[in-house]
Amino acid sequence: MSLRASFISFIMRRTIKKQFDNLQDVTALRESMAGSSRLSGPIPDKVTTTPQVIDGVPCEWITLADTDQNKVLMYLHGGGYVLGGPDSHRDLGWRLAETSGMRVLMVDYRLAPEHRFPAAIDDALGCYRWLLGEGFAADKIAIGGDSAGGGLAAATLVNIKNFGLPQPGCAILLSPWADLSGSGESVKENAKADAMLTEKALTTMAEHYLDGRDVKAPLASPVYADLSGLAPMLIHVGSTEILLSDATRIAEKVTATGGSAEIEVWPKMPHVFQMFASRVPEGGRAIAKLGVFLRTNIS
Amino acid sequence: MSLRASFISFIMRRTIKKQFDNLQDVTALRESMAGSSRLSGPIPDKVTTTPQVIDGVPCEWITLADTDQNKVLMYLHGGGYVLGGPDSHRDLGWRLAETSGMRVLMVDYRLAPEHRFPAAIDDALGCYRWLLGEGFAADKIAIGGDSAGGGLAAATLVNIKNFGLPQPGCAILLSPWADLSGSGESVKENAKADAMLTEKALTTMAEHYLDGRDVKAPLASPVYADLSGLAPMLIHVGSTEILLSDATRIAEKVTATGGSAEIEVWPKMPHVFQMFASRVPEGGRAIAKLGVFLRTNIS
Repeated sequence: MSLRASFISFIMRRTIKKQFDNLQDVTALRESMAGSSRLSGPIPDKVTTTPQVIDGVPCEWITLADTDQNKVLMYLHGGGYVLGGPDSHRDLGWRLAETSGMRVLMVDYRLAPEHRFPAAIDDALGCYRWLLGEGFAADKIAIGGDSAGGGLAAATLVNIKNFGLPQPGCAILLSPWADLSGSGESVKENAKADAMLTEKALTTMAEHYLDGRDVKAPLASPVYADLSGLAPMLIHVGSTEILLSDATRIAEKVTATGGSAEIEVWPKMPHVFQMFASRVPEGGRAIAKLGVFLRTNIS
Repeated sequence: MSLRASFISFIMRRTIKKQFDNLQDVTALRESMAGSSRLSGPIPDKVTTTPQVIDGVPCEWITLADTDQNKVLMYLHGGGYVLGGPDSHRDLGWRLAETSGMRVLMVDYRLAPEHRFPAAIDDALGCYRWLLGEGFAADKIAIGGDSAGGGLAAATLVNIKNFGLPQPGCAILLSPWADLSGSGESVKENAKADAMLTEKALTTMAEHYLDGRDVKAPLASPVYADLSGLAPMLIHVGSTEILLSDATRIAEKVTATGGSAEIEVWPKMPHVFQMFASRVPEGGRAIAKLGVFLRTNIS
């Protein structure tokens, strides 16, 4: 673990972990988090961002000069289904565009508690269907996401299968939150070690999102879904995350059904450390590896 | 097999089977089938039907004087996703209301080719959600359907689980069409014996419905779905139907996951023979048994 990663983890533990643990008023948290994208670096001039509204869902294209315009990474940001958007994830977005060579479509799906499950699910599937309708071949599309967006990405693969649409070429899941019931062993085992998330924070976010629906609903908690027949995926997760078991269970279940799921467990890295690539060398290395996976599977 | 059932099967084989096998122009078939509800009996005066529009979906309540108003059988009619509606299924509807003691909500979901998959799926789930929103307890609701509506009923149970809603109290499936890929053994084995349906007819209907989506999509062909965690169900099917394997596979898969699925295979009975209860004694006996199952599971 690099010194910089240790420092970021220390800062997160002192600031964000407490805020998340006391998450009650989502609006207040959103305001206090509005400046947190400053933890990421400034967006370089070489990056072009273009708004795109898809069936009422605001999205953002992120491209660079040498981006292959026929290849799309549809990206679902994290934030516990209550936070986040293109602003918080623009740094991660352009870095993925750079290493993959693909256009990134950052989807600003509807958030809870204003819009409950399955609003995010509907928005994600709607954007994928729109891409197909626009003429993008399914095998030129990847779906990615981190944290809640990683769970949403896995659920969207399941939903794409359920509704008989072609799977995308591949998927990348960064520290996915894939079990809203919090039943994974790591939720207890990594409770102290996790630099950012607490069981209480996850429970509160799940309540905001689900509004009384079953926490084990396969489209909310894809560890409980039939994970057969999905696109090949690469999963990144930190070894000390409370969400470690979410990542490992997705990988195990996909593999058990004959599917392809690679998982890389990063020693002691905090939740979605790729967001701090401007400061943490492991973040850049991870994004480079995600880029290689995307280039290999979307050709 | 009663003489009357033999006679009806003979008539069906000579008329409907040929029409279905040459199904190209859905509009023409709808017109020629418009009078087919005359095969069923006249609706007795004791039956009350009331229109009910649910989120834009036209439905019909069917009740009798002693109907328990707190219990609902949400019913999804058959017709290969291209035909049928309250008119064609009113006879079956009131008989189920009578033997079950429940209100029947006949759902006139959108049909193909005007409205493709997943329009019917969306309408069925929407009506179920509406019932919950109106205050009907999930355990006071049953879902039923025949043929395409039986497949739609099974898919709706899966969809209810996927979206984290509570399962209904039970379900009844009459000759369900649950594999639009036609891969069941009985499709070939019963090709001659089936009095009504042909492989070609099913293929044409599936094309109208799916519009290029995967014929094995779990919500179109629930034999390919994860059938764990569903409400207890009773399945009726005729032994000489080409859809026999659809019924037996649903029952086997539900049972294999620890669920409850009873299946009754009726010797030589034609497809959805319950629709001919006014003329065929087996139809009335089957509806009586369905009523007992509904009364037992919705109490």
